[in-house]
Amino acid sequence: MNASPVAPAANLVIFGVLGDLASRLLMPAMASLAGSGLLAPGTRLLGVSHHDLDDDGLRCRLDELVGPIPGWSRIREHVHYQKGEFSDPQLFATLVSELKGNAIFYLATAPQFFGPIIDSLGKGGLLDEIGGFRRVVIEKPFGTDLASAQALNRQILARAREEQIYRIDHFLGKETVRNIMLLRFANTVFEAIWNSCYIDHVQITVAETLTVGSRGKFYDETGALRDMVPNHLFQLLAMIGMEPPISLDAEAVRDEKARVISAIRPVDPDQAARGRYGSGDVLGQPVSPYLAEINVNPASRTETFVALEVHVDTPRWSGVPFFLRTGKALAARDTEILIQFRDVPHSLSRQTGISANRLVLQLQPDEGISLDLMMKRPGPALELAPVSMNLNYADHFKLGSRTGYETLLYDVLTGDQTLFPRADQIEAGWRALQPLIERWDHGWPQEYAAGSAGPASADALIRRAGRNWHPVG
Amino acid sequence: MNASPVAPAANLVIFGVLGDLASRLLMPAMASLAGSGLLAPGTRLLGVSHHDLDDDGLRCRLDELVGPIPGWSRIREHVHYQKGEFSDPQLFATLVSELKGNAIFYLATAPQFFGPIIDSLGKGGLLDEIGGFRRVVIEKPFGTDLASAQALNRQILARAREEQIYRIDHFLGKETVRNIMLLRFANTVFEAIWNSCYIDHVQITVAETLTVGSRGKFYDETGALRDMVPNHLFQLLAMIGMEPPISLDAEAVRDEKARVISAIRPVDPDQAARGRYGSGDVLGQPVSPYLAEINVNPASRTETFVALEVHVDTPRWSGVPFFLRTGKALAARDTEILIQFRDVPHSLSRQTGISANRLVLQLQPDEGISLDLMMKRPGPALELAPVSMNLNYADHFKLGSRTGYETLLYDVLTGDQTLFPRADQIEAGWRALQPLIERWDHGWPQEYAAGSAGPASADALIRRAGRNWHPVG
Repeated sequence: MNASPVAPAANLVIFGVLGDLASRLLMPAMASLAGSGLLAPGTRLLGVSHHDLDDDGLRCRLDELVGPIPGWSRIREHVHYQKGEFSDPQLFATLVSELKGNAIFYLATAPQFFGPIIDSLGKGGLLDEIGGFRRVVIEKPFGTDLASAQALNRQILARAREEQIYRIDHFLGKETVRNIMLLRFANTVFEAIWNSCYIDHVQITVAETLTVGSRGKFYDETGALRDMVPNHLFQLLAMIGMEPPISLDAEAVRDEKARVISAIRPVDPDQAARGRYGSGDVLGQPVSPYLAEINVNPASRTETFVALEVHVDTPRWSGVPFFLRTGKALAARDTEILIQFRDVPHSLSRQTGISANRLVLQLQPDEGISLDLMMKRPGPALELAPVSMNLNYADHFKLGSRTGYETLLYDVLTGDQTLFPRADQIEAGWRALQPLIERWDHGWPQEYAAGSAGPASADALIRRAGRNWHPVG
Repeated sequence: MNASPVAPAANLVIFGVLGDLASRLLMPAMASLAGSGLLAPGTRLLGVSHHDLDDDGLRCRLDELVGPIPGWSRIREHVHYQKGEFSDPQLFATLVSELKGNAIFYLATAPQFFGPIIDSLGKGGLLDEIGGFRRVVIEKPFGTDLASAQALNRQILARAREEQIYRIDHFLGKETVRNIMLLRFANTVFEAIWNSCYIDHVQITVAETLTVGSRGKFYDETGALRDMVPNHLFQLLAMIGMEPPISLDAEAVRDEKARVISAIRPVDPDQAARGRYGSGDVLGQPVSPYLAEINVNPASRTETFVALEVHVDTPRWSGVPFFLRTGKALAARDTEILIQFRDVPHSLSRQTGISANRLVLQLQPDEGISLDLMMKRPGPALELAPVSMNLNYADHFKLGSRTGYETLLYDVLTGDQTLFPRADQIEAGWRALQPLIERWDHGWPQEYAAGSAGPASADALIRRAGRNWHPVG
């Protein structure tokens, strides 16, 4: 890991400090940043929740989860607790008197609190950047459709400037995700062929083996489409599909991402498939059907799998379909982007049985890239065989233990918005999905066996377009 | 190794059967083909030399060198000996009565015998393809300059058709060399960027650690330029620089190779460097200077190293220099082709310190390809680091023990001329080198330390063009 400057000292106020997100991800990430020497000595963490607790109580609760991280001892005494109801003006009055200088308000709460908390922060003057920066971090989902996303953005932007808002998508903090853009633009060999002349289609897969588990209530209200597509999948699509930004400055990059997401043609519901896992085996373990999960409505229409054919209406991508899919309880954990190049336009392909090149950017579980080439098979005959050139990220770089949250919290502290989706990106994403959301108010997802690669309708979807999915895993 | 058809039965007549080439390379290659089951049962080997010997004598001499090869026992009893002077008409009269059906005449002799032997073969009717095919194999050098190459070709073609002539360059039988063309044309990702828009320059290096050793007499009359450039190096250049052949048929491939070699601009002697090794250490062993080698003229002008800047006057290569170098007693054995791509035309390169991509085709000693890319260095900053994607040929293919000679002898038996330079290619190569040959009748090579990367003038040559050599080894 290379030397990064120490972040400026700030108060990190975490609303919902006793929730899973705060204790399992945010606090460990802060401890890890402290351990790497990236936090200024004056950094302070203030946890907010409505439970009865005090500083020591919070610290002891965190000892168990965060204790093993070397940096924990450095920040433990800077962790404080503030009891309060998110809707109580008194809480914000207390914060006004408590907070001096830089402050970050991290809304690790259910989404319905985003608007009200930001309202209260604004009314209390807590977002006025007089003695230091004031920033707000919110977690997806950023709305549940176009109208709600627009309403949320209006509510937020009534109280804060876009430059103060950090919509976090932890997926974008992963090293390999951050690498995609540079891999494209820093390498002539890729940039030169990154267009419809040479690319036949793109596949973006985020396959999980996890079921909804204990998150039945949240998930049943959300579903795979809303949970994954407008954020994770469209952000990956944006990095693959964007035009070169004029610089690597945050706004230049965000401008280009917004442009390409805005260019996504509203999805044709006939070019989409949805599924819901039934019973089955995932990695050798028996799995119950989705409808039997805790807190799932037995009459639910919620999908746990979605596959889409998406078109990007820019000259670069004319006629190049993007196939997106994501789902739970699938055969393997596999996040990858596959770039399928066109067949070689040459009579050689008739003589030798060439298959076209493809580039796979593997994001999870192993991080690396592989390029499938054709080479001569040894022997007198001119026969070709496919081989892969591989690059395993870990062979070349010490990845360290930095998670997406570490990277992104550091970015919030240092004021780098590059990796945080902007309001226009979010709304453009929902706009593209709106026809599908409306259609899916009716009908039902197709069942697929847990541990499979998804429903038959997903296979049919890509086969209608004359292509095939890359196997999951 | 994949299944190849058994070659048709033929008589292989080897002129100069007691020489190094025949006993160390040809006979082992034939034994190996026999061991692979690729020779028809009726295959017969007839060795010709002026020494007193008989069938048994020849077989016993070969037992030592060829004996360990499993196929030797299969062909040993089919090996025969014919005593004769290459200039004696009686020898050819005997051959007429001996040879029925298919015959291959392999001229494993000094080059001055090529013309006379082919004359005698022709006069004796031995090249008339009445009862079977009649083919002639000759070894480089194919002339020593343009005039002598033209004269040799005229002499040969007065007696045989071009389709009967196999000019062998064993280098071209190597698997990795044969792979170059397919790698280019069967992979969209390479073919799309294989031109002056994306390629900055090409380096072709054939570095040897060997000294001239016992070959002083031959070498001192030849030198590195004639020994290596019009054949090995120009053939590699042809495979990198040729246009896509319309098919993989031998004549289609040879047409394109001839075209690109014809397009080599006559070399400017001011864009060439020659060197001669002095004393030094090669791989830890002390080496005597070239002028102290056995059978080397102490007043020799002969070079043991040559470096050239070459231009290929086709639209594809406009403005792209090819830097060629080859030499003896260098730091490492290293045959490679380096494709240096252009810098990324993007403001990113100012922000991140991108270095341009390059592709290295490694032919010796290890066979493989590597592609140097830029990737993001892990950490909060957008910093790039170079990494290599590697593909080691042996990791993917069982290369077997097949040498260039095995492949090429099989090609002669089966009548595939793809890998054999045609008369027009040879003459075009000499034509490009003629200005240099004339200039080098005067002056002297620059001395370089044995075990170095060559003379200072070679470095100056490429530096004048604003580039640097890839380190040898």
